[in-house]
Amino acid sequence: MSFQKAKTNDPAAVLAALSALLGDRLTVSLPIREAHCRDESWHPNVTPDAVAFAETTEEVAEIVKICGAHVFPVIAFGTGTSLEGHISAPHGGLSLDLSRMNRVLKVNAEDLDVHVEAGVTRKALNVHLRDAGLFFPIDPGADASLGGMAATRASGTNAVRYGTMRENVLNITAVMADGSVVRTARRARKSAAGYDLTRLLVGSEGTLGVITELTLRLYGIPEAISSGVVSFAKFENAIDAVIETIQAGLPMARIEFLDEVQVAACNRYSKLELPETPLLLVEFHGTEASVAEQATRFGEITTAHGGGDFNWATKAEDRTKLWEARHNALYASLALAPGKQGLITDVCVPISRLAEAIKGTKDDLAASNIVAPMVGHVGDGNFHLIMLVDPANAAEVAEAQAIHDRMVMRVLSLDGTCTGEHGIGEGKMKFLEAEHGEGVAVMRAIKQALDPHNILNPGKIFSL
Amino acid sequence: MSFQKAKTNDPAAVLAALSALLGDRLTVSLPIREAHCRDESWHPNVTPDAVAFAETTEEVAEIVKICGAHVFPVIAFGTGTSLEGHISAPHGGLSLDLSRMNRVLKVNAEDLDVHVEAGVTRKALNVHLRDAGLFFPIDPGADASLGGMAATRASGTNAVRYGTMRENVLNITAVMADGSVVRTARRARKSAAGYDLTRLLVGSEGTLGVITELTLRLYGIPEAISSGVVSFAKFENAIDAVIETIQAGLPMARIEFLDEVQVAACNRYSKLELPETPLLLVEFHGTEASVAEQATRFGEITTAHGGGDFNWATKAEDRTKLWEARHNALYASLALAPGKQGLITDVCVPISRLAEAIKGTKDDLAASNIVAPMVGHVGDGNFHLIMLVDPANAAEVAEAQAIHDRMVMRVLSLDGTCTGEHGIGEGKMKFLEAEHGEGVAVMRAIKQALDPHNILNPGKIFSL
Repeated sequence: MSFQKAKTNDPAAVLAALSALLGDRLTVSLPIREAHCRDESWHPNVTPDAVAFAETTEEVAEIVKICGAHVFPVIAFGTGTSLEGHISAPHGGLSLDLSRMNRVLKVNAEDLDVHVEAGVTRKALNVHLRDAGLFFPIDPGADASLGGMAATRASGTNAVRYGTMRENVLNITAVMADGSVVRTARRARKSAAGYDLTRLLVGSEGTLGVITELTLRLYGIPEAISSGVVSFAKFENAIDAVIETIQAGLPMARIEFLDEVQVAACNRYSKLELPETPLLLVEFHGTEASVAEQATRFGEITTAHGGGDFNWATKAEDRTKLWEARHNALYASLALAPGKQGLITDVCVPISRLAEAIKGTKDDLAASNIVAPMVGHVGDGNFHLIMLVDPANAAEVAEAQAIHDRMVMRVLSLDGTCTGEHGIGEGKMKFLEAEHGEGVAVMRAIKQALDPHNILNPGKIFSL
Repeated sequence: MSFQKAKTNDPAAVLAALSALLGDRLTVSLPIREAHCRDESWHPNVTPDAVAFAETTEEVAEIVKICGAHVFPVIAFGTGTSLEGHISAPHGGLSLDLSRMNRVLKVNAEDLDVHVEAGVTRKALNVHLRDAGLFFPIDPGADASLGGMAATRASGTNAVRYGTMRENVLNITAVMADGSVVRTARRARKSAAGYDLTRLLVGSEGTLGVITELTLRLYGIPEAISSGVVSFAKFENAIDAVIETIQAGLPMARIEFLDEVQVAACNRYSKLELPETPLLLVEFHGTEASVAEQATRFGEITTAHGGGDFNWATKAEDRTKLWEARHNALYASLALAPGKQGLITDVCVPISRLAEAIKGTKDDLAASNIVAPMVGHVGDGNFHLIMLVDPANAAEVAEAQAIHDRMVMRVLSLDGTCTGEHGIGEGKMKFLEAEHGEGVAVMRAIKQALDPHNILNPGKIFSL
């Protein structure tokens, strides 16, 4: 099955119609268009023909109808922090910027949920919630928009405890390719009423519908939080400690792995003095008593696996400093080699295969000259690699890409996935078939059924 | 969009082809056919033309290909414990019995997952896992097959802590309508690689694919478990206590509501001596210390809401007796009025609307002569009603159906769902549009794309 190529029959007409609807909220300014196709990845990008700033779901529906009538691509845009070329416009079209849809519509404190517009960012939401004693845990590092996080099935450091966007979106309001507005579910915690359209849209990367609003699960801010760091001589010991921790059912809120290269980068960038060996950075949430109990048990496990002393960040500001350093790991890595580009990727395996997956990549890197910090949400079996390469050095780029491809294929051979949380976008398209086999035909059939003219983010997930 | 009506052009030919493949594992015996369309619901059922007993995924694929070639309906069958007429054969066809696919294929203890065939029942799995110190928590009451539980997006008493089948299926192997075999995902805990086919099949009620194998998440058997019962004078107080418990973030493993009618039924059926007023039946999982802490806090909350003394089931056998009584609630209810039938239904609302939803239904019941025990997984906002009616009394049946329909529409007006865990089947089809609006067109488009001849469980979820 192949898609009809998205093809505009009359670009001037579609821009005129959009302009009539949006006035100066439609722009063809080159700097604005360029800013709307640049994400944080290493993938080349193509500028869209125009950028629209939408303000309501109804307006998004009108925009999609106009673009649909002209077979003009529509690429939803949140904050531009995705990592696999999701917002590039390889077939031209409209970048549909949702950042002005940034209202928190309703906090339902009794039900622990919130209804937001898609352009609200996760940090803005948490600022809004703080006085109510609530928070939204999903934390991909960047201050991404919640619509974009749903579209890419984002997760991050807290997923080991709270799940990913998959588990934390109660319903989505989306504009489909035909301009119809669908609310995927009610606000009930669970439902067995029909196909799970919520989970179909979560992770669909703007190819099945434009997410305009969503209802998210919330959690009470824990009574007690404590964070700490423990170092290991060898990464294998750290991973063994993680496996035993997960098996013991310790309800870790976060359990992050940094390799020695990443630790050195963070020390330099964030002015820390951590031992430059592999480490685990962890956080516990609970009551005072349960957090203390978890920490004790975790300490026993790490000690049994050769971990060093546990360094606690008991004060809130020390904790913040540590997690800010973790969140800035990407920027710290890039700062290791100014002028170089970061070839960033993420994969995820069953945790029993994690050491094997990491070792294979580390051996590959050791045989090259490429500097590549590694960091992972290891409680989920998910890890990231940032290979620093000189874009002008074709041999280095080719070597990094070969290491990348071997890393992904190794992970697939270990029953893992080519991406744990960054998505397919343009960057991982070539692995979709290797991962899903016959499943790709099912995905294509769904795309064809819901977007027959392929106007929604064409050229992502699947090639045309 | 309307479906092509499933229509066999040559029943003798399809049965001959199936017989050639299966030998005596294809039967047209009337008692066997009748046993394969009877579920535990009040809906009338239609017998299939034949029953096939499949033993492997490959065999299921061959069966579906043969049926597809003849446009002969295929209705997957696990244990026959569903509750909305899922296994009836309104258009004839083949009941595809998967109960002989009952092998536990692989326990991955380090990864806390297990790969099973679809016919393994939840109790059989837990027996298999016990020595490994692991368990699978999803517990719909009946000893259903895991394939059937996935197909209906089952949940039950533990969902408040461990989630539903939606959260606990890592991947599915399914035979699609064209006979292709799809494995929906790898064994990694999370993935952002393409559309979420796992969640699309979970809850699809056999209409998109026949689930033949699945990988499920497991959990360590808790170090400490304690259960208890607390009674309230009024159901509203019990519900307020639940809301405060959930808001406080207490990690309840189970929190069940039984109304006074249900308590009386359980007392009689299971030989208990509980006060015949509304009650909460709860369970805590954790370490000894954390379970004690949770119980103390829960006791404070219930006392503040007028709850009576907390009765603990500290001994394992007392705990088992209590939960067996809960699991037998349906049979206890039916035993209240021998000869009557149970009109069983389930709905789910945001918990802030739970008291309102329950009160509306209780007022309706009070104005009738219908006896109707009520029981709920109230931590999720989910509750069930069993109206006892005499099938020969048309007026009583009509009154019960009117109460049922008002209950569902009331729940929809409270942003709830027409079914929390039983599914749509035949019984809730008329509410699908009211709940999902434009979303139904999306569901139909997916069904049409993946099963264009409508051979997979036709006449369920959607009418033809």
